[in-house]
Amino acid sequence: MSFNSFGNVFRFTTWGESHGPGLGVVIDGCPPGIELAEADIQPWMDKRRPGQSRHTTQRREPDEVRIMSGVFEGRTTGTPIHLMIENVDQRSRDYSEIAGKYRPGHADYTYDAKYGFRDYRGGGRSSARETAARVAAGVVARKLLGKGVSISGYLVELGGIAVDRDHFDAAAIGNNAFFSPDAEVAAQWEAAVDKARKAGSSLGAVAECVATGVPAGWGAPVYAKLDSELAKAMMTINATKGVEIGNGFEAARIRGEENADEMMPGDGGPEFLSNNAGGILGGISTGAPVSCRVAFKPTSSILTPMRSITREGEATEISTKGRHDPCVGIRGVPVVEAMMALVLADQMLLHRAQCG
Amino acid sequence: MSFNSFGNVFRFTTWGESHGPGLGVVIDGCPPGIELAEADIQPWMDKRRPGQSRHTTQRREPDEVRIMSGVFEGRTTGTPIHLMIENVDQRSRDYSEIAGKYRPGHADYTYDAKYGFRDYRGGGRSSARETAARVAAGVVARKLLGKGVSISGYLVELGGIAVDRDHFDAAAIGNNAFFSPDAEVAAQWEAAVDKARKAGSSLGAVAECVATGVPAGWGAPVYAKLDSELAKAMMTINATKGVEIGNGFEAARIRGEENADEMMPGDGGPEFLSNNAGGILGGISTGAPVSCRVAFKPTSSILTPMRSITREGEATEISTKGRHDPCVGIRGVPVVEAMMALVLADQMLLHRAQCG
Amino acid sequence: MSFNSFGNVFRFTTWGESHGPGLGVVIDGCPPGIELAEADIQPWMDKRRPGQSRHTTQRREPDEVRIMSGVFEGRTTGTPIHLMIENVDQRSRDYSEIAGKYRPGHADYTYDAKYGFRDYRGGGRSSARETAARVAAGVVARKLLGKGVSISGYLVELGGIAVDRDHFDAAAIGNNAFFSPDAEVAAQWEAAVDKARKAGSSLGAVAECVATGVPAGWGAPVYAKLDSELAKAMMTINATKGVEIGNGFEAARIRGEENADEMMPGDGGPEFLSNNAGGILGGISTGAPVSCRVAFKPTSSILTPMRSITREGEATEISTKGRHDPCVGIRGVPVVEAMMALVLADQMLLHRAQCG
Amino acid sequence: MSFNSFGNVFRFTTWGESHGPGLGVVIDGCPPGIELAEADIQPWMDKRRPGQSRHTTQRREPDEVRIMSGVFEGRTTGTPIHLMIENVDQRSRDYSEIAGKYRPGHADYTYDAKYGFRDYRGGGRSSARETAARVAAGVVARKLLGKGVSISGYLVELGGIAVDRDHFDAAAIGNNAFFSPDAEVAAQWEAAVDKARKAGSSLGAVAECVATGVPAGWGAPVYAKLDSELAKAMMTINATKGVEIGNGFEAARIRGEENADEMMPGDGGPEFLSNNAGGILGGISTGAPVSCRVAFKPTSSILTPMRSITREGEATEISTKGRHDPCVGIRGVPVVEAMMALVLADQMLLHRAQCG
Repeated sequence: MSFNSFGNVFRFTTWGESHGPGLGVVIDGCPPGIELAEADIQPWMDKRRPGQSRHTTQRREPDEVRIMSGVFEGRTTGTPIHLMIENVDQRSRDYSEIAGKYRPGHADYTYDAKYGFRDYRGGGRSSARETAARVAAGVVARKLLGKGVSISGYLVELGGIAVDRDHFDAAAIGNNAFFSPDAEVAAQWEAAVDKARKAGSSLGAVAECVATGVPAGWGAPVYAKLDSELAKAMMTINATKGVEIGNGFEAARIRGEENADEMMPGDGGPEFLSNNAGGILGGISTGAPVSCRVAFKPTSSILTPMRSITREGEATEISTKGRHDPCVGIRGVPVVEAMMALVLADQMLLHRAQCG
Repeated sequence: MSFNSFGNVFRFTTWGESHGPGLGVVIDGCPPGIELAEADIQPWMDKRRPGQSRHTTQRREPDEVRIMSGVFEGRTTGTPIHLMIENVDQRSRDYSEIAGKYRPGHADYTYDAKYGFRDYRGGGRSSARETAARVAAGVVARKLLGKGVSISGYLVELGGIAVDRDHFDAAAIGNNAFFSPDAEVAAQWEAAVDKARKAGSSLGAVAECVATGVPAGWGAPVYAKLDSELAKAMMTINATKGVEIGNGFEAARIRGEENADEMMPGDGGPEFLSNNAGGILGGISTGAPVSCRVAFKPTSSILTPMRSITREGEATEISTKGRHDPCVGIRGVPVVEAMMALVLADQMLLHRAQCG
Repeated sequence: MSFNSFGNVFRFTTWGESHGPGLGVVIDGCPPGIELAEADIQPWMDKRRPGQSRHTTQRREPDEVRIMSGVFEGRTTGTPIHLMIENVDQRSRDYSEIAGKYRPGHADYTYDAKYGFRDYRGGGRSSARETAARVAAGVVARKLLGKGVSISGYLVELGGIAVDRDHFDAAAIGNNAFFSPDAEVAAQWEAAVDKARKAGSSLGAVAECVATGVPAGWGAPVYAKLDSELAKAMMTINATKGVEIGNGFEAARIRGEENADEMMPGDGGPEFLSNNAGGILGGISTGAPVSCRVAFKPTSSILTPMRSITREGEATEISTKGRHDPCVGIRGVPVVEAMMALVLADQMLLHRAQCG
Repeated sequence: MSFNSFGNVFRFTTWGESHGPGLGVVIDGCPPGIELAEADIQPWMDKRRPGQSRHTTQRREPDEVRIMSGVFEGRTTGTPIHLMIENVDQRSRDYSEIAGKYRPGHADYTYDAKYGFRDYRGGGRSSARETAARVAAGVVARKLLGKGVSISGYLVELGGIAVDRDHFDAAAIGNNAFFSPDAEVAAQWEAAVDKARKAGSSLGAVAECVATGVPAGWGAPVYAKLDSELAKAMMTINATKGVEIGNGFEAARIRGEENADEMMPGDGGPEFLSNNAGGILGGISTGAPVSCRVAFKPTSSILTPMRSITREGEATEISTKGRHDPCVGIRGVPVVEAMMALVLADQMLLHRAQCG
C-alpha cells in the first residue's frame, strides 16, 4: 500500500506541492525499449497547462518535463522513470488569511484535522497542480499501449448545459477552449464561464472518456475489476464527485432487456449491438470501447464570501482571492485521459502476467 | 497487488464459486481482542440471504458462517480470521445451454476471452454469491469500528421510481422487502418488481449508504483518498455501474457558492451547514456523515430471449432460466453497507499507522 | 501489504492454527488452464507429513488436501484456488502450564507482548503446522513452472555434522529419513538425532535448495531482487536464522578474482565456469542453477528444564513435554523447496508482466 | 508490488542511475510533524560518501541532499518527501569496452538478458550509487524512531580477518576508515586492503548491525516477520550474499538448551540471559537488541583480467579499469544501518496500525 502511488505492475508515485520547488512522478515497472523523449511529453502537458485562455487560472507554468532517469539512448530501460517539473510561477504573497481560516469545499480543514498542520501555500499537496505529474506519466502509458489503443476525453456537460449527442464531432474537441465535441454548445459554455468568473462564482462539469482498441480480457475479478480500477482512478482526481461506467446511473432506470447488450458474430469476437456496459462485463473488457464519465464539482475557491471558521474555531467569513480556474472540469479532461491510459497500461501488464 | 483481496492494513481475500463446495473470506490485519462469535455474524448474513421473499432468488442457502481460525476464547487473536460458508443448494441441472452460449450483460464471454474457458455453473466466480463473504467480513469491520460509527444502507430508487426524501423514515428500512426508507414507495416497488418478474424482465436500483460517527482525518491524499477507496469498493460489487459521493453528479450542475459546505463553530470541530461533500474533502473525512450512492443495473439473467453468440461464434438466441433476483439491487444493500464498513475499518487503521 | 500473504502476482494467503479445525491457503493470480487434482498434491504433502519416522513429531496428521475452489474440470480457472487441510490429531490435553509460562526460544512471549494474549494450544498460529499450507501451494507453483524447472532440497548439515560434497548422490536424498544426499553421513545423523531425543535435547540443521532450468532474466532491481525475495521467503519459515545465496558468507572471505564467475560462450547464453553467485547477479537470474542455504535452529521445545518467567512476571522453570520434532530442520526441507517454487513462480509472472 | 519501492506503511521509492543527472528517493507514509532539515541529513551521507580515504572509490560526489517536497516550516507534512541528490562526478569517458562485454560478477549480463539492452555507464541502475538514496531515507526513519532506538553498524570481518569480540570498543568504530570496533584489527585490514588494491584485486567483508531500544511486539507473523523483512532489506543491498539474524548459522550447530535464550524477571518484561535469537522470536521483537549480520562479496570490478564473453557471444577477456572500491563492504556499513532503520520505522507504524 502507498498513499501516493497508483497501479500494480505499471505503478507510479507522485511528489510535490503547489508552491514547492517542483513536482514529479516516478514510474516503476515500465517495460524496456519504449522510445521516450521529453519532446514527446510536452504536447500533452500543454493540453492541461494553465494560462492558455481566460477560462483557466492565470498562473503561468511552462510545465516543462525533464526525464531524470530510466531512459537511455532514447529508450526506456525497465528501471524507474523519474519525470520532473519545476514550479516557476509560485506567486509570492501573503497567505495569512488562508493560513488561519478554512476555505469551504477545500481540503484546508481536513488536512489540518489529519496532520495537525498544513502547507497552506496554494493548497500544498491538495492542489490540482499534482495532476501535471499524472499527465506526464500518462504519456508513458499511452506509449506502452501503442497505437492500437486510442483514448479520447471531452466534456459532455458544463454548468448544467449538456452537449447534444447528435452534434458530436470528434474534430471539434481540439478546436475550443472547453474540450467540447459540440461546437454549438461550446459557445454557450463560454458565456456561462465568463458570467461565473465575473460573478466571483464557479461551475461544475462532466467529462467523458472513451478508449477504443482495448482487447477483450483486460481486468480481473473480483477486487481488481477494470471498472473498479477506473472508478478509483477517476475519484483520485481533485474535485471529482461521481463516476459512471457505460450508461452508469441510467442503467438503474431501464429494464434488463433494454440494458443487456446483445451480441452478433463479429470479426474475432462478438459484435455488441449496443454498449451500455461501457466495454466491461464482470470487471473484464469486452473488446467494445471502454467508457466512463466523471463529475467535477465547481471550484471551491471563489470570490463570493462564505461563512467559515478560523483555526481557533471562531466564526469568520472568507472570500478566496488569487488565481483560480472558474471551472476545474475543463483542465480535468486531459487528467481523465491520463488516468484512463494509466489504468489500461497497468491492466495490460497484469493480464500478460497471469494469462501470457 | 492481488486480484481477490481488498484493503491495505485491514485486508481481506475471498474465494469460492457459486456451485463449488463453498466460499469464504480470510481477514488479515484485524486487531486482537475483538469479541467475535458465529452468532454475531448470522443476523447480518440473513439480511442478504436469498429466498426470504418472492422478490429475490429462490435458491435456499442458510449461509451459516463458520469461524475457522483467528479467534480464541471468543476474541480475535490478531492472526488471519477465516470465515467459511458452505454451499448447500447448488441445484444439479444441465448447464449445456449456458456452457455453450454467452448470456448478454453477463461475464460469460469476458471470462472465456480472458481465461480460455470458464466455470459456467451458476456463473462460477462471477456470481454475486461471492458477496456473502463480504457481508461476513463486514461484520468484523463493524466490530472494529465500534458503536461510535453507524452505517445505514437503503434503496433510494428502484426501476426508476425514487423515494420521496420528505418521507424518509429510518425505521421503515427494516420493515419492507426492499430496504426502502419510504413505506409508500415500497408498495410501488413491490408492484413493479412483481410485474417485471412475471414479464421475464428485471429492474435496476440505486442504493445509498451513510456512515455517521466517522471522525475527521480518515483517508489520505492522493491515491488513497477515502472517496476513491469507496468508489473502488462499490464498483467491485456485481452489477454496479456508477458511484456518487455526497451530491455526486448534482455537484456538476450547481454553482460554487451553492456547493461548498459552509462552516460554523461546532463541538470539537466545525459544524457544516450542508453536506454536499458527503463528509469528504481532499480525500479526507470531515467529521460529517460519509455518504455515497451506487447504481445497480437490472439483472442480466432474464427469461426474455436475447440475441447472442455461441462459443463457436455462431449467432443464437438465449433465454436465461433458473433462479434469479428480478432486481439484484435489493440484496445489494447489505453488500454496500459491508463494503462501507470494510473501507472505513481499513482507513481507521491506516490513519492510526501514520498519525498515531 | 498483508501479514499473512506472500508473493506479488502469484500470491498466496494462509490461515489456520495448530489446534483449530484446520488450515489452508488461498492462491491468487494463478494462470488458468493448469491441470490440478488433489492426487497431484498428496505426494508432496507426504514428504513433510509428521509421524513417518521416529525422528519427527509423533502427531498423526494425514494432511489430506481438499481443493475448495479455483479448479474446474481438472484445470485451474484463473480465480482463487483454496486448498484446505483438516486438523485431525489435535491432542486434547491440559495446556495450563504452557498457557501461564513462556517457553524459551518460542514465540510465546512475543505473541503475548504484541497481541495482549495468545492461542497457546500447540503454539497457535506460530506453529510450524502452518507450513503444510506452503507445501500445498508449492505444488501449484511447480505445476506453473513446468518440467523445465527442477527444484531439489536436502540437508547439508545436521547437529554440526556436514555432508561430504564428494559423496553427493542425488538419488540418496529420498532414501533416508533426513533428506541427506550423503548416505554415509545419514547414518551419523541418525545416531545424533536418537541421542538428542533421548537426552531431551534437540539439534539444528542447514538445508540447501537448488533450482535448475531457471532462464536468465527473472528477478528485478532493486527492491524485488530474486535473492532478496528468496531471503525473505526462507526467513519466514519457522526456526530459520540465516540465509545464504550461492557461496554466501564464503564470498566475504575470498578475493574478487576467485569469487567472480568467469564466462565462456555457451548454448544460448554464457556458460559460467563456476557458480559462486548462486545463479543470481544484480538480483536477476543468470541461467545457472539458483541456489541457497538456510539455517534452522534446534527445536526450542525440549524436555531439558529451562529458566523462564510466568505471564505474571514471576521466575519459573519450564520443561516442554508433548510431541515435538527433535530436529525441525528435517521437515523443513520440503518447506524450503516449496518456498523456492513459490518465489520462482511469482518471478516468472512478474518478468512476463514487464518484459513480455 | 513495486520493483523499486520498499516498505509497507513507511514506504520509499528510489530512482536514478550512476551516470544520469542524479538520484533520489520518495518517502511515503511518514508521520507529520517530524523536524527535518537538509543539515540533519548531510552527516549521514558523509559516512557513506566516497573519496574520503584511499580505501574507497575516488569518485568525488558531495552527495548534497535537497528536500524537494513534504516538509513545511521545518517539519514533515505527512505527504511525500522527495530527497534528491545530484550526480556531479560522472567521469566522461569511453565505455565502449564495458558496453560490448560482460564483467564477471556484475549485473551486466543479467540486465541485458532481462531488458534487451542496458545503460552501461557506470553500471546504470545496478550501481551501488543507488544506496545514497537509502542513507538519506534512513535519516528520516531514524527521526521517526526517535532517540529511544539506537542503531549501530560496523564490520566484524574483512578479507577473512575477524575482529576479536573481546576487543569490541564502540568508540573505535568512528575512528578508523573501516567502521571497525576493534582498533587492532583495523590496522590489519588497512594492510590487507592496500595489498588487494595494489594487486588489482578486491576483498569481501561481513557487517553487523544492532538496534537497541526496540520494544517487544514489532513484526508480524507469518509473512511479515521482522526477521524476514530484515533479510529482504539486507539482500537488496548491492554485493550481499548472506544474512544472519542473531547467532545465525551458529544456531544450526548447537543444541536446543544452548540456543534457547532463558528468561528472568526484568524491568517491564523478561530479561533474556542470552540473545542468540537476535531479539526476534516468532518474527516479533522480544525487547532485546535486534541484531543481524550481512556478507558482502568482494568487488567484482577488478584490474585482474578475467575470461568473459562479448554481447555477440564471443570469448573475450576483461580487466575493469576506472574508480572502484577495493572492498564494497566498507561503505556498505552505513547502508546496512539505513536499511535497519527503514525496516524498523515501517514495523513501528504497522504495529501501531494493528495494535494501537
